Amino acid sequence: MGGASRSRQYHRDIDTKAPSTSPPDTARRARVLTGYRPTGPLHVGHWFGNILNMRKLQEEHDAFFFVADWHMLTTDYDRTELLPDRVRSLVLDWLAAGIDPAKATVYRQSDVPEVAELTLLLGMITPLGWLERVPTYKERLRDLAERDIANYGLLGYPVIQTVDIAIVKGELVPVGEDQVSHLEISREIVRRFNRLYGPVLVEPQPLLSESPLIPGSDGRKMSKSLDNFIGVSDGPDDIRAKVRTFITDPKKIRLGDPGRPEICPIFTLQRLFSAPDHVAWIDANCRSGALGCVEDKMDLADRIVEYYGPFRERRAELERTPEIVDEVLAEGAAKVRPVVEDTMKAVRRAMNLA
Amino acid sequence: MGGASRSRQYHRDIDTKAPSTSPPDTARRARVLTGYRPTGPLHVGHWFGNILNMRKLQEEHDAFFFVADWHMLTTDYDRTELLPDRVRSLVLDWLAAGIDPAKATVYRQSDVPEVAELTLLLGMITPLGWLERVPTYKERLRDLAERDIANYGLLGYPVIQTVDIAIVKGELVPVGEDQVSHLEISREIVRRFNRLYGPVLVEPQPLLSESPLIPGSDGRKMSKSLDNFIGVSDGPDDIRAKVRTFITDPKKIRLGDPGRPEICPIFTLQRLFSAPDHVAWIDANCRSGALGCVEDKMDLADRIVEYYGPFRERRAELERTPEIVDEVLAEGAAKVRPVVEDTMKAVRRAMNLA
Repeated sequence: MGGASRSRQYHRDIDTKAPSTSPPDTARRARVLTGYRPTGPLHVGHWFGNILNMRKLQEEHDAFFFVADWHMLTTDYDRTELLPDRVRSLVLDWLAAGIDPAKATVYRQSDVPEVAELTLLLGMITPLGWLERVPTYKERLRDLAERDIANYGLLGYPVIQTVDIAIVKGELVPVGEDQVSHLEISREIVRRFNRLYGPVLVEPQPLLSESPLIPGSDGRKMSKSLDNFIGVSDGPDDIRAKVRTFITDPKKIRLGDPGRPEICPIFTLQRLFSAPDHVAWIDANCRSGALGCVEDKMDLADRIVEYYGPFRERRAELERTPEIVDEVLAEGAAKVRPVVEDTMKAVRRAMNLA
Repeated sequence: MGGASRSRQYHRDIDTKAPSTSPPDTARRARVLTGYRPTGPLHVGHWFGNILNMRKLQEEHDAFFFVADWHMLTTDYDRTELLPDRVRSLVLDWLAAGIDPAKATVYRQSDVPEVAELTLLLGMITPLGWLERVPTYKERLRDLAERDIANYGLLGYPVIQTVDIAIVKGELVPVGEDQVSHLEISREIVRRFNRLYGPVLVEPQPLLSESPLIPGSDGRKMSKSLDNFIGVSDGPDDIRAKVRTFITDPKKIRLGDPGRPEICPIFTLQRLFSAPDHVAWIDANCRSGALGCVEDKMDLADRIVEYYGPFRERRAELERTPEIVDEVLAEGAAKVRPVVEDTMKAVRRAMNLA
């Protein structure tokens, strides 16, 4: 297709470990699907939790990556003015990070209106009890108690999620060990559909993916809502300022005090951004007291600045041709269309709606 | 449009009171919308409750009539094999009854996939509390307690109903006095949308329509589920047999006993099927005891057989060209499309999704 050559133009490996092969023979690969809510700029937690995994997935599988803009409405229906920029930003981040639309199918959820149709249909067979029991639903209600989000759409989140997977015949869904249960309700809905109407939908399987726990400046999991993050697009000064605010071992007060790297967020990040011999050197000198926290932090900041240098450059370059986002999403929508139409034809036929 | 001439071919007034005017100037008329679930063949209760009203609406308004096939899934998701025949049957009944696709826009809900998209979007702003309080929801759950219907789709019934109206910019919705509250939740959802995103959707108003209470053979409201009905397509023998089973005044045991027409279902039906002077004659002779129930019933049966004669003929004629149903629905889908696209463009823009 015409889009592929254009796509290659903005793909340049920034991670030399990623093999630069010709486009994969997707017919032989399992289809893996993952989507992200456009919540704002990527941070280091997303990078090591998702982006690196997506880069791997697009090499090894028939990868479908989508921007879950409709999902954002479940919690942010009253601030949709943020949506267009966040969608653009997420796609630019993906492209700059090496997600390659020539290898993966990159699309936006709302560009596939059949997602809504299948959501309506699967909703007809999804017991309310299954939805009310979903822990994420209760958590969201609690976390956002001060906002007015106990809406029909939020309760139906797992139904749309099931549709996202089933409509493109997703076989594998990358999940962390603690998220296997999130996929279980999708598997149940698919099984119920197939039991009622015949074997039409593919039952997805979890693809266990390790994602390291990335600590933020306060030692808790790095997250946008805790405002303890380092953005992957942050400039060098920002990165240095943010690293300076990180907590370290509270018992290591001054240079010379022995430190405990195993409880230090800075050390956890050093292990991601530094070479193993340097990590070993830090470990030894932190414990002995020879390495002070300030020096350790400045060293880490330099490494983060350096690590994301190529990413920042690529992103700045992409921002100069912002139409690239629309092109990528249009290409993705065109790639996903025949798959979706095939699923929907079979669904409508099975339900006697065609 | 090309379809109109074809439509006229199967329109022939069976009620001489309906004025045979040229197609109305729809631009000046309020848009009225009503939909029916394809639950099976029409009976006398539907005829006087809905069909006659629809014939009036298509003359006086810009009428949109739709077959609510997706709505059927809320209760009948496990018997969709009945759906295709029921949809055909309802459209044939409408056409034979004088619903004229050249005057009204006649379409099928599932032919408008944007209904699902807008359902997903409105669901995001519809509080669960509003839905849980809807009396029809609780009634359905109770009525169908032995079946497994406490599904997400059933709870969302009012959301789809709101979409049915709003997506075609319906201004008026015919409702009985006791159903005004059913429309209230739709008005609330529309108001909430307009408050959040700007004045995009039309807030529908109730169009109070009188529909006489039609008694069935047991004296209760005529209904399919009570199996106390006379079908408008029933043959003469069937009609006579069914009328014979009707209860009458229990105190009028034999010829000569005085009767009370005001509590007699046969008399209620006579008032619908007989001329006023004949009704007066029955009233007098029932009260005096001169008219026996058996004679009264046979008289009524003759009148029902006669009344529906033209309908039965037209329906039999239409059944010989069954492709007419697909043609009517295709024409209707084409007529409704530009209206729906216009609404959805405005909705997506207002929600920052376009």
